[in-house]
Amino acid sequence: MPRNAFYAQSGGVTAVINASAAGVIETARRHRAKIGKVLAGRDGILGALTEDLIDTGRESPAAIRALKHTPGGAFGSCRYKLKGVEKGGHEYERLIEVFRAHDIGYFFYNGGNDSADTCLKVSRIAAEMGYPLVAVHVPKTIDNDLPITDCCPGFGSVAKYVATSMREAGCDVASMARTSTKVFVLEVMGRHAGWITAATGLARGRPDEGPHVLLFPEIAFDEAAFLAKVDEAVRRHGYCTIGVSEGLHDKDGRFLSETGLKDAFGHSQLGGVAPFVASLVQAKLKYKYHWAVADYLQRSARHIASKTDLEQSYAVGKAAVELAVAGRSGVMPTIVRVSSRPYRWKIGVARLEDVANVEKKMPRDFITPDGFGITAKCRRYLEPLIAGEAYPPFENGLPDYVRLKNVSVRRKTKTAFKP
Amino acid sequence: MPRNAFYAQSGGVTAVINASAAGVIETARRHRAKIGKVLAGRDGILGALTEDLIDTGRESPAAIRALKHTPGGAFGSCRYKLKGVEKGGHEYERLIEVFRAHDIGYFFYNGGNDSADTCLKVSRIAAEMGYPLVAVHVPKTIDNDLPITDCCPGFGSVAKYVATSMREAGCDVASMARTSTKVFVLEVMGRHAGWITAATGLARGRPDEGPHVLLFPEIAFDEAAFLAKVDEAVRRHGYCTIGVSEGLHDKDGRFLSETGLKDAFGHSQLGGVAPFVASLVQAKLKYKYHWAVADYLQRSARHIASKTDLEQSYAVGKAAVELAVAGRSGVMPTIVRVSSRPYRWKIGVARLEDVANVEKKMPRDFITPDGFGITAKCRRYLEPLIAGEAYPPFENGLPDYVRLKNVSVRRKTKTAFKP
Repeated sequence: MPRNAFYAQSGGVTAVINASAAGVIETARRHRAKIGKVLAGRDGILGALTEDLIDTGRESPAAIRALKHTPGGAFGSCRYKLKGVEKGGHEYERLIEVFRAHDIGYFFYNGGNDSADTCLKVSRIAAEMGYPLVAVHVPKTIDNDLPITDCCPGFGSVAKYVATSMREAGCDVASMARTSTKVFVLEVMGRHAGWITAATGLARGRPDEGPHVLLFPEIAFDEAAFLAKVDEAVRRHGYCTIGVSEGLHDKDGRFLSETGLKDAFGHSQLGGVAPFVASLVQAKLKYKYHWAVADYLQRSARHIASKTDLEQSYAVGKAAVELAVAGRSGVMPTIVRVSSRPYRWKIGVARLEDVANVEKKMPRDFITPDGFGITAKCRRYLEPLIAGEAYPPFENGLPDYVRLKNVSVRRKTKTAFKP
Repeated sequence: MPRNAFYAQSGGVTAVINASAAGVIETARRHRAKIGKVLAGRDGILGALTEDLIDTGRESPAAIRALKHTPGGAFGSCRYKLKGVEKGGHEYERLIEVFRAHDIGYFFYNGGNDSADTCLKVSRIAAEMGYPLVAVHVPKTIDNDLPITDCCPGFGSVAKYVATSMREAGCDVASMARTSTKVFVLEVMGRHAGWITAATGLARGRPDEGPHVLLFPEIAFDEAAFLAKVDEAVRRHGYCTIGVSEGLHDKDGRFLSETGLKDAFGHSQLGGVAPFVASLVQAKLKYKYHWAVADYLQRSARHIASKTDLEQSYAVGKAAVELAVAGRSGVMPTIVRVSSRPYRWKIGVARLEDVANVEKKMPRDFITPDGFGITAKCRRYLEPLIAGEAYPPFENGLPDYVRLKNVSVRRKTKTAFKP
C-alpha cells in the first residue's frame, strides 16, 4: 500500500525553492505504487503542527510545472525552530501524531542548516516512537553554507543577480564619475558567510572594472586599510564600486550595521551597512557616493535566475524522492562537482548527522591576501554556478508567476495545537 | 560638403541611452552626403568644452550595434550646467569655438529638461554668432517628466525593473509573513515626479497582491493615514508591501529622507527614505520589516529592459538625425501615443522652447483619491511602456556589455579651457 508524503519549505525562501517542490511532487507522481498523496505544510512546519495540510494533488500538472519559474515559497515557509521535550514542548511528538493521522510515510524538509537538524531529529523521534517514517532533507539556502554539498540550491541565482547588478551599476558609475558619484556601495546578504559578497566580484570582467573592494563577514573591518583601498581605486580608475556583506563586523565582532545608523527613534538601524560604509567614505575621503541595499530583491529575482541553479534545485527535489522510495532515511541529496571547466556535476548523498548545524564559510584562499577581493580559485568555483539563463514567461511586460489553489485537507486529529 | 556632428550624453544615464546613441550614429552613417564624422563628447558636454572629442568612426558597426544592449553612458556623461555670459562665464562661446574648429554642423544633445534648455541656448547663441548649426535634443530621462512627449526614453525600462522587483519581493514576503517580515518597503527614484513609484504599482496582478501602499512625491506624507493603511493591509492580507519615492516629503516640503536618519557622523542620511518609513512602521505598529533601496540598480538594469523603451530610445536617436538633415533646429523628437490597447506609437516633433525646464508631474487622476495607489487610467498609461523583453547577450552567466575604444580626435584649438 502506498503511503502519503509530507513536504514543507523552511526558513528564508529563494528564487528557485519552488523548483525543488516541483521536483518532489512530479517525481512522487511517478511513484504511485509507493507514494500516495503529497501533502504540503501551509507556512512550512507550522502547517504540520496545526494540521493545516495542503493537498498538492489538487494542482494541475501545468501549475506544478509553473513552480519551476515562480519565486518565493508556493506553500508558505516559516522561521520556526521545533521545541523538543527537553524544552517543555512536545512538538516532535505532535508532528508524529499528525503524520500518523494522515498516514505520512515520507517526510521531505526543504531548508538549510536548522532544518537539516530538525529533519534528523524527526527521523530519530519517529524511530523511538516506533513510527515508520523515511525523512529526507532537501537542501536550500542562498547563503551557500551547507557542508558536504559543493553548492546550495538557491545560491547560484542570488550570485547571478548580484554579479549582474554590480556589473550594471558599474557601467553607470564609470560613465558619470568625472562630475558625479565616485563611490558606489552595494549591500548583499550573507550574515556569517561571504559567498554572496564574493559573487559580486564576478562582475569584474576586465582588470580595471569594479567591484574594486569587497567587504567580507569573514574579515574584520579595518577602516584605514579600507579607506586607502577606496582612495587608490578612485585615483587609478576615477571611481570605486564596493560589495559589502550585511554581516560585516569589526575586530570585536560588532556588526557595523548596528553601530552606524540611528533611526528617527534613536534605534540602531539594522541592514544598513551600505549607508554606513558610504558615509564613512564621504566623511573621510570627501567623495560623492551612492548606495543600494538589494535585500529581498536578490533572493526573489527569478527573472535573472541561474539555469544551473534551477536545474540543481529541481534535481535535489527529484533525488530526495528517489532516495526515499529506496528506503534511505536521515539523508540529504548533495551536488557533487565532477569538473569545473567544463562544468559537470552529479547528485550525491550525505548523512544528516554530518550536515546538521555545520556552517561552511569561505575558505581563506578564496579571498585575496589583502582581504578585499576574490582569488582565481574562488572565481573558478563560482563561475559555473551562475551559468545559463532560464527566463520565466512574461505577460503584459511582467513575469507571469503561478499562484496555487492550496486547498486544505480535512483535519483528522481532535487536538488543537497552538505553536 | 558634409559637415560633422557632435553628440553628447547629459545627466543621469539609463539602461537604454546608448540605444539612442546607436540610433544617432547608425542613422548618420546612412547620410554621408550631409553628415561627415560623428564626434562624441567625452563625459558629455565637458568633452566639448575641453575639446576632448571621441571619433565614433573608429568603432566597428558591431560595436555600435552592441550599444543597443549596453547600459550606462558609453562616451561618459556629466552633471554640468553651462554658464552663460551673464554668469561671468563664456562657455557657450567656447562651445562654438570648438565646434568651428571641428566643422560641427549638427549638435545632438541627449538628456532631460536641463539639457533641452542648454540645447536651445546653444542653437540661439550659434545664430547670434552667425555660426550655422542645427541643434536637436534627444530626449532621455528615467523620471518621465518631459512635457509634450507621451513618455521619456529610459523610463519604461526602470518601470519594468521596479514592477518586476516589487512583484518578486511580494512573492517572498507573502510566503514568509506568518512568522517573519510583515512589511516590506522598496525605495525608488524620482525626486519630484512619482512616475517610477507609480510603476511599482503595476506589480499588483490580483486585488490582494502588493504593493498595497504607494508613497508619491506629489502627495504630502500623512503619517496617521499611512499607518492606518499599512495596518489594514497586514490585517487583511497578512503582509504589506510599499513603494516609496526618494522624494517623499511632508506638508512643509521637508524631505523625509533628510529628517529620518543620521549617520555615524551625525549627518542626515540622504536617499534613505525606505529605512525611515520601515522604522516608523516598526515603532508605531510593531511589525517586523525589511527594506530595499534600488538606487542605481534600477536605472542600469539593462538585463530587464523594456523592449518598447528600447525601440523608442533608438527611434528618437534616429529621428533626431533625420530632423537635422532636413534642417530642423531647436527641436526634439517626441513619442506620440496613437492608441493604448493595442499600443501604437509614432514619432512627433516638439519645439525646444516648449520643452525646456518644464516638468511633467503625475496628473492627480492617476493617483487614487486616498493618495496611496494608482488608478485604472494610470495603469492604462503605464502598461504598454514596460511591454516586451529585450535581453542582452550573456557570456559565462553575465551580460556581455560592450566597451568602446573611445579614441580621441586631435585637438585643434590653441586655447586651454578649465570648466
